[in-house]
Amino acid sequence: MDERAARAALTALTEPGDPGLWRCVRDRGAARTLDAIRSGQYPYRNAGTLADRLPRVDVDQLWEAAGACGARLLCPGDREWPEEAADRLAQAAPEQPASSRERDGPPLALWARGPADLAELTRRACSIVGSRAATGYGIGVAGEVAADLAERGFTVVSGGAFGVDAAAHRGALAVSGHTIAVLASGVDLAYPREHEMLLSRIATEGLVISEVPPGWTPTRPRFLVRNRLIAAMTAGTVVVEAALRSGALNTASWAHNCGREVMGIPGPVTSDMSAGVHQLLRQSVPLVTNAAEIAEVIGAFGEDLAPDPPGETRSRDELGPRARTVVEVLQTRKPLGVARVAQQAGLGLDETRAVLGRLMVDGYAELHGAGWRLSEEERRRIRGHQ
Amino acid sequence: MDERAARAALTALTEPGDPGLWRCVRDRGAARTLDAIRSGQYPYRNAGTLADRLPRVDVDQLWEAAGACGARLLCPGDREWPEEAADRLAQAAPEQPASSRERDGPPLALWARGPADLAELTRRACSIVGSRAATGYGIGVAGEVAADLAERGFTVVSGGAFGVDAAAHRGALAVSGHTIAVLASGVDLAYPREHEMLLSRIATEGLVISEVPPGWTPTRPRFLVRNRLIAAMTAGTVVVEAALRSGALNTASWAHNCGREVMGIPGPVTSDMSAGVHQLLRQSVPLVTNAAEIAEVIGAFGEDLAPDPPGETRSRDELGPRARTVVEVLQTRKPLGVARVAQQAGLGLDETRAVLGRLMVDGYAELHGAGWRLSEEERRRIRGHQ
Repeated sequence: MDERAARAALTALTEPGDPGLWRCVRDRGAARTLDAIRSGQYPYRNAGTLADRLPRVDVDQLWEAAGACGARLLCPGDREWPEEAADRLAQAAPEQPASSRERDGPPLALWARGPADLAELTRRACSIVGSRAATGYGIGVAGEVAADLAERGFTVVSGGAFGVDAAAHRGALAVSGHTIAVLASGVDLAYPREHEMLLSRIATEGLVISEVPPGWTPTRPRFLVRNRLIAAMTAGTVVVEAALRSGALNTASWAHNCGREVMGIPGPVTSDMSAGVHQLLRQSVPLVTNAAEIAEVIGAFGEDLAPDPPGETRSRDELGPRARTVVEVLQTRKPLGVARVAQQAGLGLDETRAVLGRLMVDGYAELHGAGWRLSEEERRRIRGHQ
Repeated sequence: MDERAARAALTALTEPGDPGLWRCVRDRGAARTLDAIRSGQYPYRNAGTLADRLPRVDVDQLWEAAGACGARLLCPGDREWPEEAADRLAQAAPEQPASSRERDGPPLALWARGPADLAELTRRACSIVGSRAATGYGIGVAGEVAADLAERGFTVVSGGAFGVDAAAHRGALAVSGHTIAVLASGVDLAYPREHEMLLSRIATEGLVISEVPPGWTPTRPRFLVRNRLIAAMTAGTVVVEAALRSGALNTASWAHNCGREVMGIPGPVTSDMSAGVHQLLRQSVPLVTNAAEIAEVIGAFGEDLAPDPPGETRSRDELGPRARTVVEVLQTRKPLGVARVAQQAGLGLDETRAVLGRLMVDGYAELHGAGWRLSEEERRRIRGHQ
């Protein structure tokens, strides 16, 4: 059996994310992994289960099902393969899984349906995730932010579910932007059923992808393991609305594990649907309020700078002499401690702290870690003048 | 003239917050400061203006006006004097003011009206500030948070204005809690007029205070200089709703300058009235969603711990072996770097980062500065078990 057919077979052999299976394929290749399973040489503890299941895997039937819905298989080495996402998941995967329930192995292959090129679409992409039971606020914000990100050239990635997911996909489609739905079921199945039209439109204009073969139904473990793909495939994951313990927080956790950005959009503190987001924001996750701020977090350096907030027309000329001295001491990236700023500005410690506090509220300076540096706004202004 | 009468005269001589006047009184006393002004010995550049005005200050008339509205004068050394607030403002005041427009000197004295004791009320106090043009959301949240803080024994301090201020005072009054209105006008004047009933109720049950003498009207500089008192007198300032450039951000800036806590309550990103709060929250100001979280930021250590979020019933027993090892390495206060955690847990770096990410989302760990430590929830749990 050739490697591609062997990978197709492996996607149908067990649940996605099996870390042992991924390691075996990494070390021996897919065809020889199948041989090992068949011959009892497979080194991990689920060897028996895999060997039992293998005879029931019919590769011809897989190709047929894929052909029927217009799906293709993407494998490592293919031009479309999302290499960075797979690498990040490989780095995040522990060498010794704590329990067989942890399904955090990288994908072995992906089933894809749609005209777009996965590698190209994920080059500049952002995930938007949130509650299925989103409020009108969450749906409105998700749709607006998605449309605005799509207009800025970002692919909007989400899970095709009710609520925030659907609003995000629709927002991108509404401005003829790129969008990818990552499913927990096969790419030919609409789940929820009510999204048949939406998913078919995404498959016509963007991409629907999944780790499980066509025809497979979604299950709870498949939803969770699907989340890691959404998180790993994009530069950042934005949580719009999420109750405490929402699945969207699982995606956020995966994004963090993969070294991707996590952002949260706040909402009313009176809404349970924002409680999970606020919990994230209370743990040093950056707060964002619009697409410009998201682009600034995840976008290419110097390209995606958020515009000045409305009404911001001030310049340093409006600062008093002490404040101006302090601003001139601050650097664009490297945060300086108060003592350092005070020394360089020739001011007292308390005085410097007072000036810095005002500069912060006036938008000239920001706290970064334990030190102070120029605000985004000032950095932008400086760049604009160069 | 005795010191008390001299301080009363000084409150009527010029706008509050004159840093030169404060320094002169600190160095020579109030009566000798008046002598210096009268005799042309006053060392600051507004000596002429002060000397011109002095003959028009009538102390007997001041006492009379105060007597008519039941106001008393509080001076440094009085049992009621808010010493910590004055000290903090003195420390934040620059020795060399950048311009005469900076009115950041500490108060010389305070006019107070009401049965409560200022020193006692400010021992455990929180300011709630926000937009005059607050939305129903902001008014509802301010009222609820104020009532809950008052029930926890915090005095609610605000500025008596429309919107968030009034909602905060009313919330405290509704639960028979303590509240202080700090005015930009004399303590006998209701501004806005519509708050005549509210302010008279505060003066009957709590305290109305001001730096300007009875009868003085509110002006824009008096509002700004009043904000520093609100900020300095309480352990923390909570901004509920504030547009960009709102006066509430000025209070927040003052709180920061005085080494007091600043907190923000988020709102819908679609609301201009929350834009200023979100701007603060994007600059490392802590996000809070209720009184319990506020009390945890400003309350006495170990006394005011926020309760578990609803549905939190897990214990460390539910963690896998790797996660449990990492949790056991984490400390309650001191943040540890990932490398340190990895070394002590005997895990790889990537593995440790992955486990920490999950522990964060699950509420066991938190990022603090550049390191990791146990979350508030875990710290609480540990204390509960001791």
